[in-house]
Amino acid sequence: MNSKPDSQRMEKIVSLCKRRGFIFQSSEIYGGLNGCWDYGPLGVELKRNVKDYWWRVMVRERDDVVGMDGSILTHRAVLKASGHEDTFSDPMVDCRTCKARLRADQLPEKNGVKQCPNCGGKDLTEARPFNLMFSTQMGASANPDAIAYLRPETAQSIFVQFKNVLDTARKKLPFGIAQIGKAFRNEINPRNFIFRSREFEQMELEYFCRPEQGMELLEYWKEERLKFYENIGIPRDKLHVLTVPDADRAFYSKGTYDIEYDFPFGRQELEGVAYRTDYDLKQHQEASGKPLDYFDEETKQRFIPHVVEPSAGVDRTVLALLCNAYDEETVTDEKGKSETRIVMRFHPRMAPVKVGVFPLLKNNEQLVSKAREIVATLRPHMNVFYDETGAIGRRYRRQDEAGTPFGLTIDFETLGEKDAALLGTVTLRERDSMKQERVKISDLLPMLLARIT
Amino acid sequence: MNSKPDSQRMEKIVSLCKRRGFIFQSSEIYGGLNGCWDYGPLGVELKRNVKDYWWRVMVRERDDVVGMDGSILTHRAVLKASGHEDTFSDPMVDCRTCKARLRADQLPEKNGVKQCPNCGGKDLTEARPFNLMFSTQMGASANPDAIAYLRPETAQSIFVQFKNVLDTARKKLPFGIAQIGKAFRNEINPRNFIFRSREFEQMELEYFCRPEQGMELLEYWKEERLKFYENIGIPRDKLHVLTVPDADRAFYSKGTYDIEYDFPFGRQELEGVAYRTDYDLKQHQEASGKPLDYFDEETKQRFIPHVVEPSAGVDRTVLALLCNAYDEETVTDEKGKSETRIVMRFHPRMAPVKVGVFPLLKNNEQLVSKAREIVATLRPHMNVFYDETGAIGRRYRRQDEAGTPFGLTIDFETLGEKDAALLGTVTLRERDSMKQERVKISDLLPMLLARIT
Repeated sequence: MNSKPDSQRMEKIVSLCKRRGFIFQSSEIYGGLNGCWDYGPLGVELKRNVKDYWWRVMVRERDDVVGMDGSILTHRAVLKASGHEDTFSDPMVDCRTCKARLRADQLPEKNGVKQCPNCGGKDLTEARPFNLMFSTQMGASANPDAIAYLRPETAQSIFVQFKNVLDTARKKLPFGIAQIGKAFRNEINPRNFIFRSREFEQMELEYFCRPEQGMELLEYWKEERLKFYENIGIPRDKLHVLTVPDADRAFYSKGTYDIEYDFPFGRQELEGVAYRTDYDLKQHQEASGKPLDYFDEETKQRFIPHVVEPSAGVDRTVLALLCNAYDEETVTDEKGKSETRIVMRFHPRMAPVKVGVFPLLKNNEQLVSKAREIVATLRPHMNVFYDETGAIGRRYRRQDEAGTPFGLTIDFETLGEKDAALLGTVTLRERDSMKQERVKISDLLPMLLARIT
Repeated sequence: MNSKPDSQRMEKIVSLCKRRGFIFQSSEIYGGLNGCWDYGPLGVELKRNVKDYWWRVMVRERDDVVGMDGSILTHRAVLKASGHEDTFSDPMVDCRTCKARLRADQLPEKNGVKQCPNCGGKDLTEARPFNLMFSTQMGASANPDAIAYLRPETAQSIFVQFKNVLDTARKKLPFGIAQIGKAFRNEINPRNFIFRSREFEQMELEYFCRPEQGMELLEYWKEERLKFYENIGIPRDKLHVLTVPDADRAFYSKGTYDIEYDFPFGRQELEGVAYRTDYDLKQHQEASGKPLDYFDEETKQRFIPHVVEPSAGVDRTVLALLCNAYDEETVTDEKGKSETRIVMRFHPRMAPVKVGVFPLLKNNEQLVSKAREIVATLRPHMNVFYDETGAIGRRYRRQDEAGTPFGLTIDFETLGEKDAALLGTVTLRERDSMKQERVKISDLLPMLLARIT
């Protein structure tokens, strides 16, 4: 169990993310944009793997789920009807001493008195609600109707398009509509790296059903989602299911589970699985005047479907993968020298790069051309990193930090120079165990494919 | 050649997009949000195929390109330095009669007098610049420093992160940084469906090089990008390369090509390939005070790289695919009855659904279970649509409209009831030719894979 905050570990992970090109601060050269992050070359691949796997198991491999992709800019009426315009807020206080604006429910206390975390001042205003939605002016005229919001969640565009999707996708209840996309919340105090940021990405499924199926489907989706995290390499014992108590649930929800992970900064929510009843569709039907009901061909009844929503954060999942993967160990090299090995133990399915390809020497044409040949064979099927510079040991270490599960070295034995039996073989090195084996080049593709998918 | 506007054809395409779930108006039940669109179940898969193929050929299959994914919210200083805050505008006029705001350079003229397209009025104001960037207030305090923009292009975050990527990705010139993501422009008059919208998605590559390589790489990337469009099914003779004249180019560009397509509403730009010199990096180096130069290990020189930028629009590419695919033909059924067949002739690589699977009868358990078995075999490898309702002919037609390249029918011959030699075979129907052949179930997967990748 690792639920005690470990800020040193977190700092090391953040530092590796910048050093190796997983994640950078947005607009960094201009001092940074608070609460916004850019994914670098390794980060973008890791994130793509998370999203692609979610889409694969939640949409493409299912008969009962279709996808959609709604716009980020959202009509004000949508977020009025959903309740966001009136109530999507956090309590905020001002520090009268340093003028900082602070989230009222996250203030440190000293001897029972709330303090400004910035300056230590105790002269704070009363808490008042601060709406978390970003708004913008749309179109060329400056009237209040021209306000549009950046969506605070992807879910609402699914509800608003429910009828269009129902009419075109030929699905019967129960069925789901899934979406991956950016959402925005003007957090008063963004924190914990990419965990609580102002711009983030969600993977949401709205699974519509008959009212009597709701509670059962809530259980079903909680289990499915736990399996998802296990399948991307987060062990079950690092995941915790919190049954959200009645008092903490949205008033319209009949049941909500939070799936939590033990981050270095504490146990925090990765995903919420909520049974939202028919609240959202009803709100939009009433506000828009457009029918959002379902006609049951068997019972000849019309009703508004209920919905169960597994809502996951892409960035939080990426952060869980990074935190879970980070490891340091002491290893001893051939010369008996000890050193610290930093290794990102990603599940091969999630690793940004699947295999490193290394010719033993960069100035040997035969080794290099053989290595290039292998790259060309593997690349259509997986992400390959070719590296010819530095000692082999250093090249392995660089890929350990990137989390690359396999390394291939092309040496003189590959060329058959030492032992004819080894002609056409390479050294395959496994990241976690550091074990090496000789593998025939012709066996590489199927062997690697079996281990990364 | 099809460069004469054909508004009737365009209307049919827009209508099919809504009817079959490719594209809906954003926030439609609330009257719509002008210039914003939602992709439905078929549209989202089509768009994913475009983006995935771009990422595959532009990033994963290349040694010299890495990816990134920057935030949409952008520090004001970035867009000040890039020139967008001061000059990214279109000329706007007001109609004094109906109060419409109009793009001054797109007004209809009657007898040489400019008119309001809305009310026909001729009492228009002088043109003035209207900045196209969406701004928002970031953080809890309301001071002007808290303004952030929604990025008007993805390119700037690549320039701003150039040093971070260079330091982590171990690449030498020439090399590129690629990004796919949303961008936003507050168009005065959005139009032509998803062609000119306020929220759109870009696929941009910034390919950095030595100054002396710029012109040659401009040619190289123009050719590569033409190949891309051909590989997704847009014939070369529908594409046109416009050499942007000196007077129309950005002042810092040494050469720009527009790749254009003959849309039903006229010949319009799909992609720009621009040699932007060292303008952007220089601007950001100067404004931020952070070095954005490159150290050449061989010549021991430091310089700011030049850049060639192929910048494609995701939505425009999707629209070109839709326009290119749409076809109507008169076919005669077995009973000699003529009807119009609407068929979306997508390249199989781009088609949202690759194969439809149809048991001949839905109330025959053996046919249904055999069909389900085939679905289970194919689904891990491609998008499959299972349909058991209606006459086979109607099911084929529905998939024609969705652009599904292959249909499989499981009939009594599959079960070996008519001819033992046909046991374990299905009917494979090809969308474009409507030709049917008997195929062994065991041959299906490799045969289909070969035709869709």
